[in-house]
Amino acid sequence: MANDVTNNLNNLNLEKCDSAGKEDDEDIVNPWNVVSKSETGVDYDKLIRRFGSSKIDDELIARFEKITGRPAHHFLRRGIFFSHRDMHQLLNLYEAGKPFYLYTGRGPSSKAMHLGHLVPFIFTKWLQDVFNVPLVIQLTDDEKFLWKDLKLEEAISLAFENAKDIIACGFDEKNTFIFSDLTFVGQCPEFYQNVVRIEKSVTFNQVKGIFGFGDSDVIGKISFPAFQAAPAFSTSFPFIFGKSKLPCLIPCAIDQDPYFRMTRDVAPRLGYNKPALLHSVFFPALQGAQTKMSASDSNTSIFLTDTPKMIKNKVNKHAFSGGQATVEEHREKGGNCDIDISYQYLRFFLDDDEKLKKIREDYTSGAMLTGELKKELIDVLQTLVAEHQARRAQITDEVVHRFMALHPLVTKSAT
Amino acid sequence: MANDVTNNLNNLNLEKCDSAGKEDDEDIVNPWNVVSKSETGVDYDKLIRRFGSSKIDDELIARFEKITGRPAHHFLRRGIFFSHRDMHQLLNLYEAGKPFYLYTGRGPSSKAMHLGHLVPFIFTKWLQDVFNVPLVIQLTDDEKFLWKDLKLEEAISLAFENAKDIIACGFDEKNTFIFSDLTFVGQCPEFYQNVVRIEKSVTFNQVKGIFGFGDSDVIGKISFPAFQAAPAFSTSFPFIFGKSKLPCLIPCAIDQDPYFRMTRDVAPRLGYNKPALLHSVFFPALQGAQTKMSASDSNTSIFLTDTPKMIKNKVNKHAFSGGQATVEEHREKGGNCDIDISYQYLRFFLDDDEKLKKIREDYTSGAMLTGELKKELIDVLQTLVAEHQARRAQITDEVVHRFMALHPLVTKSAT
Repeated sequence: MANDVTNNLNNLNLEKCDSAGKEDDEDIVNPWNVVSKSETGVDYDKLIRRFGSSKIDDELIARFEKITGRPAHHFLRRGIFFSHRDMHQLLNLYEAGKPFYLYTGRGPSSKAMHLGHLVPFIFTKWLQDVFNVPLVIQLTDDEKFLWKDLKLEEAISLAFENAKDIIACGFDEKNTFIFSDLTFVGQCPEFYQNVVRIEKSVTFNQVKGIFGFGDSDVIGKISFPAFQAAPAFSTSFPFIFGKSKLPCLIPCAIDQDPYFRMTRDVAPRLGYNKPALLHSVFFPALQGAQTKMSASDSNTSIFLTDTPKMIKNKVNKHAFSGGQATVEEHREKGGNCDIDISYQYLRFFLDDDEKLKKIREDYTSGAMLTGELKKELIDVLQTLVAEHQARRAQITDEVVHRFMALHPLVTKSAT
Repeated sequence: MANDVTNNLNNLNLEKCDSAGKEDDEDIVNPWNVVSKSETGVDYDKLIRRFGSSKIDDELIARFEKITGRPAHHFLRRGIFFSHRDMHQLLNLYEAGKPFYLYTGRGPSSKAMHLGHLVPFIFTKWLQDVFNVPLVIQLTDDEKFLWKDLKLEEAISLAFENAKDIIACGFDEKNTFIFSDLTFVGQCPEFYQNVVRIEKSVTFNQVKGIFGFGDSDVIGKISFPAFQAAPAFSTSFPFIFGKSKLPCLIPCAIDQDPYFRMTRDVAPRLGYNKPALLHSVFFPALQGAQTKMSASDSNTSIFLTDTPKMIKNKVNKHAFSGGQATVEEHREKGGNCDIDISYQYLRFFLDDDEKLKKIREDYTSGAMLTGELKKELIDVLQTLVAEHQARRAQITDEVVHRFMALHPLVTKSAT
């Protein structure tokens, strides 16, 4: 616990560190760009130091398991969710029986979601099950309209389509509210009121420092961070929480942290709780952790709409291999799991620890060939995607409307 | 008409001139500050050239009267509304039987409104009567919250109280929608959608040039101009106009023009009509056209809550006089109506042209003394304020709620 206190103090001091302060040889990590020069991808330990967050260590995971009485999700055990802010404080609250809620989101930039997009939702669904708390999911169609060459109506429609894939992750309708900014902002005065409160507390200089905005950016981009911050305050959802000020836990990829550093900075000045955070690593492109998944090149990732054959072809043709050039060399030297994308994808989607460990050992020793490793991944992904597609096929427009209707959720009463 | 065309061409070239471009000896005129070094106040001819608007000349007034079949309001005849943008085009539309609507507003910064605040509403009421068109009135409580040391709830409550004074000007409930941003933005998705469209079309550089914003301004101020622009597009009010794109006419004080230069710049890019404008001069403080009305000094203006006795005392004690130091000197040299505040106020509120002309002649010649002139003003204002108070006393909260409810207005159908 002493350690934890120290961590928290460090957080306070470091929390204002910003992306603009990065050095030249560092990875670029912000909500619009992630670039690493290393073939193992972003250096996450360095990122924790730069962002001033805390590492999810064995102690925290053990506490998680003890308090919830459930084994930790493999995303936690395997460091896929690797960093946090104030999770110990949140677990203290949970232990004391106090209510809180979950908030996550997605920028709906295209109709086709890929495997990486599932990661925060799979984990959030698990958190919802474990904690049995309300969840709000923000679809930032306003952001995508502002940043991309999209018509407003297209952005709204992408949000609606993406909502189907999100719902297909298995969220509980009675405890989940999904909203698109371009619709919801015009349905809930209290939401816009919190946005304006936030906008009164943040200067252009601050968003320039945090997000790298410049004078030639449009004013919609400049004020957008307030719209991503507002859902972290429970009073933005009076039909769910009434006037209660509930703490919030945000699972998200670490590139979203700048928004929530800003949110945490503003919160106490507005009389709100700072949200706690759980940060994930990035999901790598098929071509390797140094490359980017690209919406315009469908071979850089596996989409949730891909057929079993497409999955097989993509993995076989495009998944970057950590194996050796020839079978003989591979048998002799073994493969490198740290850069092998098939192995990396299995870390995300094969939840059998024993089997994953065996694959790692066999591939590293050379006992398992690249083709065999890829076969394992293809099996896992074909099943995962087919099951997702089957669930998604059940999600009618009417189901989406129910999730997106302003409806009360099952909250414990605030104390 | 040739002249008019030339004016319009000039408008197009000059419309991007901005307040930041002013020279040192020029008056300061922007939405937050109006300062003149001359005792006759702001040089409005210079302002027309600087802002690139057009003068309301005899030709336009004659056309107004011919088309509407009504004598021009004395605000037009006396140059109180002195400048315009695209009024000839708007009158062309009206002549052709095409629909349009009126939009005006107020920043609710205090509960007590003064005489000057009535000017745009008296004129707008007259325009509504003459043209028989729908009217939307925006109360920018978000702006006041952002700019002033106000709580959000206070800003909303000031908007509600100010709505009573506005309604007391006699607006037709069936054809008038009054809204406060902090409430309405959360009631109408189409409004926020137009805001975001505008926010995508305007850069920080542009609002810096137009409004003088700087890096240390909060992001709410930077995006606010989009919220004042949105009501100029009829699609922001689908419950009134459906999806019709109707032209808009905005009567306002000229300090609000920067917002609408921006709006006019953005409009064609969004496929909307540029709003037409009618600009008024500023209402002078009791102490003279060079001084400012101050919310913290109630002696600088006549409030709509003042008693007859307060009105009498304020005018007698504080109204800046254009008369001479002694009765003898005054009889000999006469008074100066151009700087005399009592006379200036009568220009606003005494609508009998003959009587006003006689007062001017008598005061200028010295036949009328300052005390007599003040007596004329006191009579006019005591009547005006008492009548306003009587009407305002009838405006219950329930009436305000009806004006502020999202309700259809009596619109001619778009063609």
